[in-house]
Amino acid sequence: MSTLKVFTDIQASAGLLDWLRNEIAPHELLLPAKRAASVLVEQASDPLIAEADIAFGQPDVASVLNAPRLRWLQVSSAGFTRYDTPGFRKAAKARGLVVTNSSHVYDQACAEHVFAFMLAQARQLPRSLKTRCTNSDPAWTMLRESSRLLLGQSVSIYGYGAIAERLVGMLAPFNMEITAVRRQPRGDEGIRIVTPDQAIAALGEADHVINILPDNADSRGFFNETVFRAMKSGSVFYNIGRGTTVDQDALADALQHGPIEAAWLDVTDPEPLPEGHRLLGLPNCHITPHVAGGQRGESRVLVAHFLENFRRHLNDGALLNRVIG
Amino acid sequence: MSTLKVFTDIQASAGLLDWLRNEIAPHELLLPAKRAASVLVEQASDPLIAEADIAFGQPDVASVLNAPRLRWLQVSSAGFTRYDTPGFRKAAKARGLVVTNSSHVYDQACAEHVFAFMLAQARQLPRSLKTRCTNSDPAWTMLRESSRLLLGQSVSIYGYGAIAERLVGMLAPFNMEITAVRRQPRGDEGIRIVTPDQAIAALGEADHVINILPDNADSRGFFNETVFRAMKSGSVFYNIGRGTTVDQDALADALQHGPIEAAWLDVTDPEPLPEGHRLLGLPNCHITPHVAGGQRGESRVLVAHFLENFRRHLNDGALLNRVIG
Repeated sequence: MSTLKVFTDIQASAGLLDWLRNEIAPHELLLPAKRAASVLVEQASDPLIAEADIAFGQPDVASVLNAPRLRWLQVSSAGFTRYDTPGFRKAAKARGLVVTNSSHVYDQACAEHVFAFMLAQARQLPRSLKTRCTNSDPAWTMLRESSRLLLGQSVSIYGYGAIAERLVGMLAPFNMEITAVRRQPRGDEGIRIVTPDQAIAALGEADHVINILPDNADSRGFFNETVFRAMKSGSVFYNIGRGTTVDQDALADALQHGPIEAAWLDVTDPEPLPEGHRLLGLPNCHITPHVAGGQRGESRVLVAHFLENFRRHLNDGALLNRVIG
Repeated sequence: MSTLKVFTDIQASAGLLDWLRNEIAPHELLLPAKRAASVLVEQASDPLIAEADIAFGQPDVASVLNAPRLRWLQVSSAGFTRYDTPGFRKAAKARGLVVTNSSHVYDQACAEHVFAFMLAQARQLPRSLKTRCTNSDPAWTMLRESSRLLLGQSVSIYGYGAIAERLVGMLAPFNMEITAVRRQPRGDEGIRIVTPDQAIAALGEADHVINILPDNADSRGFFNETVFRAMKSGSVFYNIGRGTTVDQDALADALQHGPIEAAWLDVTDPEPLPEGHRLLGLPNCHITPHVAGGQRGESRVLVAHFLENFRRHLNDGALLNRVIG
């Protein structure tokens, strides 16, 4: 086999890049002059990609499509919105370009993050961590009364992929009633699956509504006024998918006037929300800054996942997390 | 059977007391003039208890021992420290008095609470809920890097009772290495059990140390300087047992100078900690005000648990949560 050239614009320490270089040898690593500050941000075009057989990171769309030798792109995030267009898919197909993502790297962390949200809400942590009171104070009794058990509650999950699968596994000891919305039910999910047209009806029964939808033409603005109004009184909304799937004004209304009790968001549109945004002023809206996928040693896990796929690419080509092509 | 008299000083709504009265009829409910503001606080002596066959709540020790007809006391908390003395046990035995507690009511909520603590720490929620930053900010990268997965980590549990059993069930999907410390291993725990004399050695391996010890002569001050020093660097300490089991100065030292990364406490000594207390000033010490057992409809669950035991008392006497006698 001839020597392959692997272009990467990922953010990583010199040590980690050395590891990557050693692991792919005798194949060659190409590094742009300026590297990414984030796994999520589209990178500036770099002429080096024109020489590459493989790219790993967040190269801009035009560079990818103009790179004559490029056969495989591994996106360093779970989301791949900028490549997920009919135009890109068509061009990729025409020239035999395969795209994989790094969702496997983030699945467990994302599932743990949304589960942390669920338990923090159930145990009223934002309030109870700020409350110092005696055991006979009315505030104490109210705080205890406002806590609830996850045990036996109901959950509705929008976007049934790898994160949802892990989450469903985590919820098993809690005997929850779980419904998931999936465009194409496979029948082997082990939980109740409904299609998007049945989703609104299922919504009114759920104590917890979990949004893991990716950003695409179908999902954009999916959680709108109609959807929020259909939710159960006192239910909780979580978003670890993409901010664009939510009409944030409709969410703010539902938080202020019901029916929902609280929202926990790891993603918003834009990120971060501008100062003075309505959602920032609501005490029942809890926001983390797109860190659900984060974990100690994340870059190393990201590179390890690429190396696993690189070996597969050299071997039989059965790539993990294949999303296009 | 003659009509029994049931004395209760629990805090409950008139509706709930009516329910209790109806459920035990034709047996009689005796209510003191002034009722409890908390399930945890010892109540003032009330002359009515002298007529009672059964008591439910937190009656003071002297009243219990002086009540000539009393055969069974159900304490309305999980803790029963004030009755857990050699003197009380001896007097109870001499007159055939049985004591049950309400631990069953609080098991699930307490286990969910400590699990919420574990996930909130792993996902860095106290910090990430306050951070508004862009996806390329160094603060963002640091926040992601400081998050960790529970998956595959190790846990050491002190005090292996019903709460720990439920917690172990919840941790199953996370493939954690779990060790529990128990005075008398039964062999059917399904996890690694060590006795208190082996506990310090086991401590150095644990990423998470969970204290569910009750308050008694053996446990008081158990978590002292020696114990905290033996903990693993970067580990996390949780307490949902009793505040008296911890040397709080030693804990503050361990939080300021290592080895521990953070502490999450639902109990302290005293409760609440006085203003200006060292632990209140530490950013890595997170405290909730003894609400781990709280849940919506708690009083109703508490009464339902008593009624279950009342039926057992009338039937074969095989009471749940029997702790003395």
